[in-house]
Amino acid sequence: MGDTSHSHTHGGEPCGGHGHDHGHSHGHTHDGQPCTGHGDLDSQEVRDAQAEAQAMTDVVAAFLYYKTYSLNTAIYRRLHSIDELSEEHRKIVSSLGTIDKIKKAEELLRENYKFILNLTYANTVGSMPNPNEDPDKLREFLKMFFAYRERTSGKPAKDHHMDKVISTLKQFVRDWSVEGKAERETTYGPIMQALDDEFADTRPEERGKINVLVPGAGLGRLAYDICCRGFSAQGNEFSYFMLFASNFVLNKVEQPEEITIYPFVHQFSNVANVDDQMRAVRIPDVLPSELPYKDTADFSMTAGDFIEVYGDDEEKESWDAIVTCFFMDTAKNAIKYLETMWHAMKPGAVWINLGPLLWHFDNIEGEESVEFTRDEFVQLAKEIGFVFDESKFRDDVPATYTANSKSMLHYTYSTFFSVAHKPK
Amino acid sequence: MGDTSHSHTHGGEPCGGHGHDHGHSHGHTHDGQPCTGHGDLDSQEVRDAQAEAQAMTDVVAAFLYYKTYSLNTAIYRRLHSIDELSEEHRKIVSSLGTIDKIKKAEELLRENYKFILNLTYANTVGSMPNPNEDPDKLREFLKMFFAYRERTSGKPAKDHHMDKVISTLKQFVRDWSVEGKAERETTYGPIMQALDDEFADTRPEERGKINVLVPGAGLGRLAYDICCRGFSAQGNEFSYFMLFASNFVLNKVEQPEEITIYPFVHQFSNVANVDDQMRAVRIPDVLPSELPYKDTADFSMTAGDFIEVYGDDEEKESWDAIVTCFFMDTAKNAIKYLETMWHAMKPGAVWINLGPLLWHFDNIEGEESVEFTRDEFVQLAKEIGFVFDESKFRDDVPATYTANSKSMLHYTYSTFFSVAHKPK
Repeated sequence: MGDTSHSHTHGGEPCGGHGHDHGHSHGHTHDGQPCTGHGDLDSQEVRDAQAEAQAMTDVVAAFLYYKTYSLNTAIYRRLHSIDELSEEHRKIVSSLGTIDKIKKAEELLRENYKFILNLTYANTVGSMPNPNEDPDKLREFLKMFFAYRERTSGKPAKDHHMDKVISTLKQFVRDWSVEGKAERETTYGPIMQALDDEFADTRPEERGKINVLVPGAGLGRLAYDICCRGFSAQGNEFSYFMLFASNFVLNKVEQPEEITIYPFVHQFSNVANVDDQMRAVRIPDVLPSELPYKDTADFSMTAGDFIEVYGDDEEKESWDAIVTCFFMDTAKNAIKYLETMWHAMKPGAVWINLGPLLWHFDNIEGEESVEFTRDEFVQLAKEIGFVFDESKFRDDVPATYTANSKSMLHYTYSTFFSVAHKPK
Repeated sequence: MGDTSHSHTHGGEPCGGHGHDHGHSHGHTHDGQPCTGHGDLDSQEVRDAQAEAQAMTDVVAAFLYYKTYSLNTAIYRRLHSIDELSEEHRKIVSSLGTIDKIKKAEELLRENYKFILNLTYANTVGSMPNPNEDPDKLREFLKMFFAYRERTSGKPAKDHHMDKVISTLKQFVRDWSVEGKAERETTYGPIMQALDDEFADTRPEERGKINVLVPGAGLGRLAYDICCRGFSAQGNEFSYFMLFASNFVLNKVEQPEEITIYPFVHQFSNVANVDDQMRAVRIPDVLPSELPYKDTADFSMTAGDFIEVYGDDEEKESWDAIVTCFFMDTAKNAIKYLETMWHAMKPGAVWINLGPLLWHFDNIEGEESVEFTRDEFVQLAKEIGFVFDESKFRDDVPATYTANSKSMLHYTYSTFFSVAHKPK
């Protein structure tokens, strides 16, 4: 199998908003561009393309800045705090192993950085030197790259982007590790079951003709799992962080568990013991290129804003199923999401949804956002025309998103699960 | 019974840090003051007093700014977002009741503001007009107050202080409502049980001679509950937000459930239905002045930094028990907390602790902070000299802190519980 298709129909969003993650970090990574009046189409296209290029460069910069940023915030600042203690206190801290812990964390951050360099290289081949070849060449490139950034943007990378780099590591745990299995089962599990039920009459060998769309696909595991059941699946994703990561895991990895990352090394609060914090996670748990129905089922990823890509005339009534998992609340205006889904779904198609309502643009300075309660949201979908299967509705499916299972602080969503149809 | 004593030994912290709450918002509300070299004692005292006065004024301003701030961020911004929708979408949103919901929220914010005005007045009698008397006089006062703030500080109130005003409402739920009962039972419950076990040989009527200290006392319920078992209890608190609130509930309230607040009206994400969001909470569930052992047991609150107040020579070996609940992780340097506790405890005294390790100064720009794992922390306490009762140690007590039980997002801490002694 060749590369999983990455159609680049990245539409961008002229007045788009910055990410607002609260734990689930899909979509919306581009900072707002000033809303200029629409000129002629060509100059608008040029501006869009420039904004896209800038957005991608910002994400590259964030990945490449990981080492410097993490060392400063996680390591040097902590060692400095210990230096500032009285000699007596410093001795106690040293005897507890706290200094050794910080030094161990430094080691693991450097390991993470090697992985991040490879991931970035895989997405920018030709633009940066191969990190596995000449280290001097890479160093020289990074020096020039960040000198240019400092001159033009004032900062090597955006602060909130650095959080996204770290949360990208946790996305790998969620989607492509043994450790993420429990989390996937609670969230992807009910969705897969509903898909199986919906198409119970079609044998897996024949399901390749059934097209399933997965908006907010993240690192692609749900789309992949759907494909493993015989369906043709397409994931759509807006965030370059996710797109870089999914491209890497879907297309560049050659062996199961060939990569080791340390996704929890950044967390120094609510840690029971050092082993929990420093634990390794191996990815991927399965090889994404191994698809049992690869002869009959297609698997692809698209990049771009869901509304722009699937609101297109070409997408009209194209999809037999849309599954949304922790996606609907990424909308500034969920009506647009629902209308786009309606447009893209064939008459009779099914929409399966599971997620919370952590409206991503809620309370973001300068952003428009409409927040619905769960009851309002379900009513809204009915107004659009969706017909819910009331017997399948569940209003309290406990679920986590990129959780650290060993943390002393747990975020648990009471998600709701629904199955609805666009009537024939 | 007269006012619960509020000794004002508020020491301040010359290089103190700003609050960093993550859900539990006790302590550390004063913004950092520049660390100037120590001059002579008198001028240092003057500076400390000025910093204290400024800190208190900032908190008063935050309370008084609640209405304007909440209307702007929670109401007007949302109505504006709906105005910006297409006419068709606006009609749909209107039919769902989303606009009515926002208008209802506005009403309840105004109700909250009445309560907050009374709370602020109770703590500043003489400085501001009584909000229940002449509305024109109050309006005039507020106009002048904020005009002065704008001139001198540039802003009516600090942004992160506004979050604290809202979290103060939730503190009332935790400590003084029927709704908070479950949360109190999981956190205060094991502590009360351990205290009862420790002093099982002393009848409640005779427990007044046993002095129990509660650092990070918040709104005072744990100290009050301890007093209800016959012990003499003293709560200590650093945050003026908490101190204002505890003074009000402990000293000014005359009837159980005489006050109605709407603590969850600000949350528009992860809401199942409007009733959940708009629900009223009545406070207090019990009348704090009703103490069953008031003739034998003392109940008091002190204001100030724990290390400064209880590190004093006068406090040496004064306490029979110290109970810490969600407190130890408020330290920049937990060794200082432990040393202060050791200093203030009588030989043979007991220390009962329950909480997570959400180090409050972790990753705060410009702050010193040492973060220990749970294992390191327990080892540290042993180094200081504490002897743990291993049979009572529990490493996973699930607990929430000022939770909204009806939210679709839950934060749960895996707290640890311990009983230790300062040997005789």
